[in-house]
Amino acid sequence: MKIRIGIFGYGNLGRGIESAIRQNPDMELVAVFTRRNPDTVKISTEGVTVAHADDVKSFKDKIDVMILCGGSATDLPVQTPVLAKDFTVVDSFDTHAKIPEHFANVDKASKEAGKVSMISVGWDPGMFSLNRLYASCILPEGQDYTFWGKGVSQGHSDAIRRIEGVLDGKQYTIPVESALEAVRSGSEPNLTTREKHTRECFVVAEEGADLARIEKEIKEMPNYFADYDTTVHFISHDELKKNHSGIPHGGFVIRTGKTGLNKENTHVIEYNLKLDSNPEFTASVITAFARAAYKLEKAGESGCKTVFDIPPAYLSAQSPEELRAHLL
Amino acid sequence: MKIRIGIFGYGNLGRGIESAIRQNPDMELVAVFTRRNPDTVKISTEGVTVAHADDVKSFKDKIDVMILCGGSATDLPVQTPVLAKDFTVVDSFDTHAKIPEHFANVDKASKEAGKVSMISVGWDPGMFSLNRLYASCILPEGQDYTFWGKGVSQGHSDAIRRIEGVLDGKQYTIPVESALEAVRSGSEPNLTTREKHTRECFVVAEEGADLARIEKEIKEMPNYFADYDTTVHFISHDELKKNHSGIPHGGFVIRTGKTGLNKENTHVIEYNLKLDSNPEFTASVITAFARAAYKLEKAGESGCKTVFDIPPAYLSAQSPEELRAHLL
Repeated sequence: MKIRIGIFGYGNLGRGIESAIRQNPDMELVAVFTRRNPDTVKISTEGVTVAHADDVKSFKDKIDVMILCGGSATDLPVQTPVLAKDFTVVDSFDTHAKIPEHFANVDKASKEAGKVSMISVGWDPGMFSLNRLYASCILPEGQDYTFWGKGVSQGHSDAIRRIEGVLDGKQYTIPVESALEAVRSGSEPNLTTREKHTRECFVVAEEGADLARIEKEIKEMPNYFADYDTTVHFISHDELKKNHSGIPHGGFVIRTGKTGLNKENTHVIEYNLKLDSNPEFTASVITAFARAAYKLEKAGESGCKTVFDIPPAYLSAQSPEELRAHLL
Repeated sequence: MKIRIGIFGYGNLGRGIESAIRQNPDMELVAVFTRRNPDTVKISTEGVTVAHADDVKSFKDKIDVMILCGGSATDLPVQTPVLAKDFTVVDSFDTHAKIPEHFANVDKASKEAGKVSMISVGWDPGMFSLNRLYASCILPEGQDYTFWGKGVSQGHSDAIRRIEGVLDGKQYTIPVESALEAVRSGSEPNLTTREKHTRECFVVAEEGADLARIEKEIKEMPNYFADYDTTVHFISHDELKKNHSGIPHGGFVIRTGKTGLNKENTHVIEYNLKLDSNPEFTASVITAFARAAYKLEKAGESGCKTVFDIPPAYLSAQSPEELRAHLL
């Protein structure tokens, strides 16, 4: 009996989940839910229902885990608590500052329903959070550093596109190599925003647009670019499509700390990711944790969980005996 | 009320635990147990009892978690199941092939006693195992690689010292940089033992010893050196003491894998450690998991656990609310 998965929202992340399910033989995709007209949504898996989001309740007994693939700004704060009343749900809510509030809302709904939910699953929040937690518990006297990139920031790319005279654009966040090296040395440097990352923009401008003005507007944009060293390249639409249509990302979580009676020994713990596709990797993490949510609920648990609450063995389709014999 | 810790065995690892406890304000060291005459064992913490191993039972109600610091070859297979009858125990059993047998013995004792035990805690087995598990669940179609070093191998150093004419020696295991790069490329190379690591030996020989014969014996030693490219340096006792008295170690766990409907995207997950002191870092990992064992037992659990079974939040002295607000 396979774990029956539903996908709620069919954008990049939803398509990533669809693809990840094929790599996990103990799972099957049952239905995709969309707010669009279902007849207009073509998915990649034959024989799977595409239904309207409004009809989701009728799938209550047909789906073991519902994976929410909407955005954190407006979709998930509403959708996750509502769907948690009828389904075991997993989302990738990533607005760090609002996690406690989102957790409380989802936890209440799940507990009332006697179901398990998981929020903020992915790589940051998610695997990066886990690595921050493990490393800080192992080295209580030390310092954490998180770097992102090289990768595409959707929010920053959107910000560029809103500038007058810009037709299209892509923004890469790039960790500064010398800052990474300083951190790895164990010297626990204090790094400013500018010292940690640079930003590189590839911009397609309207014909005749004032390029100098566009470049200035990007570089001086508060919150997004003003605190960074930013490079702007104007390129053609063809070049953007050819060289910048991927959605790569990645990053580094590094903790350095001291041990010893006189704090004489330094240790470096580093976790890093290099991802060809941000949404497909995020989807792969979510899919593994969907299995854990399913198993936790079968074990009698209920309420909202995060990656911090999941015994790692629950992520695997293998038995505890197999894991101890082969992976420990 | 602090978590009261006992240390069973006072070698490098035991001293590491003693030091780590000072970095965890919610813990206190209660007693150190030794098979030597306790009067001859000087520890670094004032006011803490040093007792004979034979008297350990009388501390049953004074210790919350007993950390076993003996060796995996002959100490732990006997000590852990015996102590698990009276104490919540944590060990660092690292003979990978015998983990299932050791687990069964310790699990039986702990379940009969209604207590929690943890085996094979450290960095390999331990944190490396965890990273192998997480990464293989996230990327089911991929390949795992573990590299060790640069670091001192105690077993290989001992093997050198047993050769006739050798007074002292130290062996370093070194990962091959080009092999690491090949793995990180995502090409999933098949690597032989020789291609993954080299071995470097620093040897102090007796005066007049046949150095060519010693070098040959090292390089051709089956299991230990014959399958590796090995370099042998003859140095003075002073040089060995000055430059090679540390116990550094570390290593890399890398998994690469594909996602996408056509497996068109490659991802690289890397975890690496660079440790000035192998025993102090191992002790730091064990100390964090000792907290988890204590909390699990308070939560009503019993039986033997490994790092795979521990919800990460249990490692921390912070509350789940604090962790979600600050680390997620």
